[in-house]
Amino acid sequence: MTGTTELAELIEALPPGCVITDPDGMAGYRWDRARDPGAGVPLAVVRATSTEDVQAVMRYAAAHHVPVVPRGAGTGLSGGASAVEGCIVLSTERMRRIEVDPATRTCVVEPGLLNAEVKGAVAEHGLWYPPDPSSYEICSIGGNIATNAGGLCCVKYGVTTDYVLGLTVVLADGTAVELGGPRLKDVAGLSLTKLFVGSEGTLGVITRVVLRLLPQPRPPHTLVASFPSLAAATSTVVAVTRAMRPSMLELMDRASINAVEDHARMGLDRDAEALLVIQSDESPSTAAEEVARIAATCEQNGASEVFATDDPAEGASFVAARRMVIPAVERRGSLLLEDVGVPVPQLGALVDGIARIAAEREVEIPVIAHAGDGNTHPLVVFDPTDAAHTARAEAAYDEIMRLAIGLGGTITGEHGVGRLKRPWLGDYLGPDALALNRRIKAALDPDGILNPGALL
Amino acid sequence: MTGTTELAELIEALPPGCVITDPDGMAGYRWDRARDPGAGVPLAVVRATSTEDVQAVMRYAAAHHVPVVPRGAGTGLSGGASAVEGCIVLSTERMRRIEVDPATRTCVVEPGLLNAEVKGAVAEHGLWYPPDPSSYEICSIGGNIATNAGGLCCVKYGVTTDYVLGLTVVLADGTAVELGGPRLKDVAGLSLTKLFVGSEGTLGVITRVVLRLLPQPRPPHTLVASFPSLAAATSTVVAVTRAMRPSMLELMDRASINAVEDHARMGLDRDAEALLVIQSDESPSTAAEEVARIAATCEQNGASEVFATDDPAEGASFVAARRMVIPAVERRGSLLLEDVGVPVPQLGALVDGIARIAAEREVEIPVIAHAGDGNTHPLVVFDPTDAAHTARAEAAYDEIMRLAIGLGGTITGEHGVGRLKRPWLGDYLGPDALALNRRIKAALDPDGILNPGALL
Ligand SMILES: Cc1cc2nc3c(=O)[nH]c(=O)nc-3n(C[C@H](O)[C@H](O)[C@H](O)COP(=O)(O)OP(=O)(O)OC[C@H]3O[C@@H](n4cnc5c(N)ncnc54)[C@H](O)[C@@H]3O)c2cc1C
Ligand SMILES: Cc1cc2nc3c(=O)[nH]c(=O)nc-3n(C[C@H](O)[C@H](O)[C@H](O)COP(=O)(O)OP(=O)(O)OC[C@H]3O[C@@H](n4cnc5c(N)ncnc54)[C@H](O)[C@@H]3O)c2cc1C
Repeated sequence: MTGTTELAELIEALPPGCVITDPDGMAGYRWDRARDPGAGVPLAVVRATSTEDVQAVMRYAAAHHVPVVPRGAGTGLSGGASAVEGCIVLSTERMRRIEVDPATRTCVVEPGLLNAEVKGAVAEHGLWYPPDPSSYEICSIGGNIATNAGGLCCVKYGVTTDYVLGLTVVLADGTAVELGGPRLKDVAGLSLTKLFVGSEGTLGVITRVVLRLLPQPRPPHTLVASFPSLAAATSTVVAVTRAMRPSMLELMDRASINAVEDHARMGLDRDAEALLVIQSDESPSTAAEEVARIAATCEQNGASEVFATDDPAEGASFVAARRMVIPAVERRGSLLLEDVGVPVPQLGALVDGIARIAAEREVEIPVIAHAGDGNTHPLVVFDPTDAAHTARAEAAYDEIMRLAIGLGGTITGEHGVGRLKRPWLGDYLGPDALALNRRIKAALDPDGILNPGALL
Repeated sequence: MTGTTELAELIEALPPGCVITDPDGMAGYRWDRARDPGAGVPLAVVRATSTEDVQAVMRYAAAHHVPVVPRGAGTGLSGGASAVEGCIVLSTERMRRIEVDPATRTCVVEPGLLNAEVKGAVAEHGLWYPPDPSSYEICSIGGNIATNAGGLCCVKYGVTTDYVLGLTVVLADGTAVELGGPRLKDVAGLSLTKLFVGSEGTLGVITRVVLRLLPQPRPPHTLVASFPSLAAATSTVVAVTRAMRPSMLELMDRASINAVEDHARMGLDRDAEALLVIQSDESPSTAAEEVARIAATCEQNGASEVFATDDPAEGASFVAARRMVIPAVERRGSLLLEDVGVPVPQLGALVDGIARIAAEREVEIPVIAHAGDGNTHPLVVFDPTDAAHTARAEAAYDEIMRLAIGLGGTITGEHGVGRLKRPWLGDYLGPDALALNRRIKAALDPDGILNPGALL
């Protein structure tokens, strides 16, 4: 481990005020939203202001073999940013510059800016950065890139990686490498930009991002449909995604609906077994047609109520209800937040299986889903003061991942493996793909100082 | 080198009829469309029928240190598939199975199927595979993935990597690894699928591909505009891409127009300095509005003639003219086919610079461009029997790449580095990014048997 003398070396290498070492000041940097009970105590927290600062940290860490945990806004749900004992937590929260270039429809952003701030800055130029995790108001763009974040618009507009044209990354030895740039097509060299997207801080620290932007979308038309059974809702999802491209297709089950109503009174149908919130952002006449076609599909699949609106504000209130589920359910207890995904036709089997696991393990598991891309968030609620209950919740968490793998699905659709899901990664990937992951990690971070224990 | 005895070992490891060793039979496998004069004579050509065959080849190659050059349809324009002396050319042309799953809107394809055949097979289910290199009728889907091929639809629909959900790759040691799958969102593990896309056969052999599909697009509206100067055309491109999302935005210069007219009489305006071919595939009323807005932009930027049609067949004839340029110009001499790309606002500076280089070097350089994404194909025409002319053409080829780099552009937007552009890769990437590319290559293919001399 490293003593105070060496730490002085780090402090000197950085602008004044970057390094925090007092336990109180560091407390807020130990956990992300997964609140991993295994989080360690950092040696120091560095609030970098530039690529050069990040390079200084990595050079120091390499020389002294100190682990580094990169950290954005700490909203991660898989423990990817939880501190490792004796590590440097490297926070990007002060790296917040953005330059928008409307002529190339791109922007260059530092990692600490929040997703919502990126959206806001580009909107001033009539542009749009589509990826929209539910946490968009509180998560950083660097964290989004490190986790390849998803969101509600993915069903039509894809995930974070689809918008990343270039990166500056600082490698384990402190070298800063520029990859890609504001060119829509570039095949010179290996696809390294894409390799760093989703690498969860294990291959390098992202210090600068070039994003592809779209023109502002049209105001959406919104449809909300209630269903008397989960099966009716999931069969609607399969029928819709087969033939149409809605710009949003979200699902809430009965428990989620009721958690939101308890919390905020949004006027949702408490008796529905499932609710779908669907949007179309085509031009007005086409959107109206698409919504009518989707409404008919809902009815054919047994919807008990279908409501459509072309008022964007009214539509937004249903989307807000959907986004509110996680905070609302958090009031009912601690959460083990699942993120399993399956091919869309397996959605019914997945939600059925989850209900069975909840009944068997006697735990409450409300389910929400980015249903259009088969990505679900079963929210396993438990009482951390009740050891038996906690053990049953953990068993359910494990069983849900095994269920998803058995249905040809993934253990994580968007939140990442982090530290919490690492035990399942090998089973999911199989030994050869896991070995390949390890080979890349070893090639880029031979001493294993970048976010050790996360992902791999 | 390897003698006949050892070759018997390879022949035995494969189904009958896979291995070609007679020089006549091998001749067709020595070159791709770049017709690299440095191509070597292979030891053998293997026409694999399955992943297992590919594994057998790689195991043999690893044991005997024989280089392997993966080969799709051989339409590559950068020498990525040209044979290396004493190599095994590993052709995928017999791996042609496809399974379409309309419920997940995905298909699973073997690499040897042609792009047009993939499009055809999925169209039978009302589905669409967007990527459309001009060579779509003659190039393989495996080659497209290995080069991250572009095409005409990229400006709205992105490049090949945006449609690849999963791969099976055979590594240098013969291990077959499955990466990704028919899941729209999956962040479990590093983004290895994306790393193999665009790796030009240097990291592994692609034997199976999972593609994401879209519903069939709407019939496009087409606009063709003639311009009295290249500057007027390129400023139109900048104005259009800033604000709108056409589904195609192609440029032909005067020399390209005339080459096509000499070849096929398409009725193009021979006096125009530039022609833009633009499409919109929005719903009919929106497409009409978008085309009207684009037409107005063309006129504001000095178009001499603007013609619009909502007849898809008429539109297709202009697209066919655009696709015909390369074969038409090929009749005028041998080609050094450039593929430089710049940020869209630099398009004017790039085409000006190319004209200047053509004048200075006294070589003919017709230019076509996927203008909407800043990707141009200057076609350097030369007479290979005239050494001085050839040398001037080579100088122009070099100068065009340096020009693009100076404008913040890339040396290759879609054709790949292959063997022909390798000398420029280091200048483009810089030493740190180049070293990072090499580290990944060394980690995955330590003995350097996969496509040596290509890309890196
Ligand atoms: C209420 C709620 C809703 C959510 N909804 C969604 C959703 O819809 N979709 C979704 O995808 N996620 C969602 N999340 C999860 C989370 O917001 C995302 O994973 C987000 O991308 C994390 O960003 P962050 O800045 O908070 O990163 P952090 O939590 O700080 O870090 C996440 C990971 O990225 C690494 N990292 C962060 N910054 C860098 C960097 N600059 N360089 C290298 N590595 C870095 C960390 O080491 C860690 O492994 C939600 C979270 C909450 C609390
Ligand atoms: C007239 C014409 C127009 C063209 N227009 C375009 C265009 O618009 N956009 C564009 O992007 N390209 C274009 N091209 C270039 C070419 O068609 C593409 O690069 C195409 O993707 C190559 O496919 P192929 O099957 O012919 O591959 P090949 O030429 O056989 O191989 C290309 C590269 O991929 C590797 N490779 C092939 N198969 C595999 C595999 N299964 N596993 C691993 N590596 C493999 C090879 O080793 C080589 O490095 C054009 C070519 C021509 C002749």
